[in-house]
Amino acid sequence: MASEFNIIRDFFTHPTRHTDLSVGDDAALLRVRNGHQLAISTDMLVAGTHFFADALPYDIGWKTLAVNVSDMAAMGAQPKWATLAIALPENNASWLGEFARGFFACADTFGVDLIGGDTTRGPLNISVTIFGEIPQGLALRRDGAKASDDVWVSSYIGTAAAGLAHLLGKIRLENDALEASLDALHRPVPRVDLGLKLREIASSCIDISDGLAADLGHVLENSKLGADIFYADISKHPALESSLGEAFEAMVLSGGDDYELCFTAPQDKRDAIKHIAQDLNLKLTRIGNTRAESGLTIYDANYQPMVLKIAGYDHFK
Amino acid sequence: MASEFNIIRDFFTHPTRHTDLSVGDDAALLRVRNGHQLAISTDMLVAGTHFFADALPYDIGWKTLAVNVSDMAAMGAQPKWATLAIALPENNASWLGEFARGFFACADTFGVDLIGGDTTRGPLNISVTIFGEIPQGLALRRDGAKASDDVWVSSYIGTAAAGLAHLLGKIRLENDALEASLDALHRPVPRVDLGLKLREIASSCIDISDGLAADLGHVLENSKLGADIFYADISKHPALESSLGEAFEAMVLSGGDDYELCFTAPQDKRDAIKHIAQDLNLKLTRIGNTRAESGLTIYDANYQPMVLKIAGYDHFK
Repeated sequence: MASEFNIIRDFFTHPTRHTDLSVGDDAALLRVRNGHQLAISTDMLVAGTHFFADALPYDIGWKTLAVNVSDMAAMGAQPKWATLAIALPENNASWLGEFARGFFACADTFGVDLIGGDTTRGPLNISVTIFGEIPQGLALRRDGAKASDDVWVSSYIGTAAAGLAHLLGKIRLENDALEASLDALHRPVPRVDLGLKLREIASSCIDISDGLAADLGHVLENSKLGADIFYADISKHPALESSLGEAFEAMVLSGGDDYELCFTAPQDKRDAIKHIAQDLNLKLTRIGNTRAESGLTIYDANYQPMVLKIAGYDHFK
Repeated sequence: MASEFNIIRDFFTHPTRHTDLSVGDDAALLRVRNGHQLAISTDMLVAGTHFFADALPYDIGWKTLAVNVSDMAAMGAQPKWATLAIALPENNASWLGEFARGFFACADTFGVDLIGGDTTRGPLNISVTIFGEIPQGLALRRDGAKASDDVWVSSYIGTAAAGLAHLLGKIRLENDALEASLDALHRPVPRVDLGLKLREIASSCIDISDGLAADLGHVLENSKLGADIFYADISKHPALESSLGEAFEAMVLSGGDDYELCFTAPQDKRDAIKHIAQDLNLKLTRIGNTRAESGLTIYDANYQPMVLKIAGYDHFK
């Protein structure tokens, strides 16, 4: 069986772009550019909780890094470095090779250097810490929204939740709807370019990992505001909307794992945001507005206020 | 049952000293001082592999951070920040409270801010990433040793391995020997002050986590050297040496988990190193020397070359 040192050498040695000292010493060494802050986030993914244990290892590798890259996008940071710690029940070379291929596909797409890691034996668990640079003071924080800001969401939401519901046998999807939802679930594309362009445009930003209601709720709580959100205005994947109808509502409002960005911006930024959408060829949709009075009110397809039954995903509820 | 968000709020909110934005957004924000590199290391600890599942949660909390701080010490870096990701089989408030108490006791001792984290449900797994600052170019790397350098070790080694052997029922320790060995195993004290003072003195440095032979082996491999090491010259805890005799040899040479520093330095630094030992009130012992010819030769208590049977700990061997 390959040793711990061989696992690192065989699967996780990869050229770096902007790192002084990478894998192989007690610590990695890097430099943050003058005038920049370092943004840091960490996520732990557990088999059976965050992904099916029998999911494709390529997809697990991609998603493990992508969800972390998404946290950089949500801050408006440029992702640059990551560390990877992984516990494995056994040393399975073909699994590791595919996992590494997916991980580095994502790393290369977003310019992330893997600078350190740890491999150990144990129930499958993957922990990534990611680092990005941001010019001093320009981070997109959760506490910056102001009353009467517009609330925006990128692309479609509810897509990944539909894929999960299909895999759990709760719904049955076909063709385009199935493909789009499984793609969203297995290989989310973090909105790094959007995050970078939203610096000095958005007043707050978060990535939708736990569901729109829960994640927007964090922004509102941190910014001490409320919001009115209109379900009818939210962009949904057409194939999913037509095949799921009303059953799609809970997925759109409370389904996690889409990693789209939800951001607020002053009304006078609408033109700037439309230009960003054109530049990136990315749908950006205004779904409501913030208000001084606390609370999150969501209006249904008929613009009637609805009672939210489902909160965001919470691992300990 | 407390939610994920309450776990972070209740147990892992702690004042920070040198962080722009801490726990609670998509990412933390910090600044690295001009002229400094950031040193980064990550370690994953799994119940049953790195600690007994029934170990005191206070000790698990302390050790989880201490082994990471030790990687900073080994680089000559000043530890400043850490992230913590933890998977828990159940939300056990008393366990978490004690774990956090041990973790922050270590964090406060070494001036480390907890800046981010993730909690999820799963088999007990703890992953820490640590960050330290070091003036540009002064890191103590594994590849800097030169032929005919002295090889030094701090304090005693083999102590933690004796504690582990006792807990596994392989040996039976009492009184001072038992207390010292369990202290070393459960609450290692990383040698941060020593690492800082070794900048511009030591030519290479590593912390002894996998055992002297394996860890010194990494330095020799990276520096393309060999070494002669004298068992008789290694400082051992007197109570363990007298009670274990020859059985102690393998623990001293190949036992992990001591987190003492093993470093090399030119012979003309002996006086400087003696002054460091006095300043820190810490035993620093010269145990041999490097040589141009590759290979690690260890001489036994009678100065006869011995054949090493046990390599360092490897999770996949």
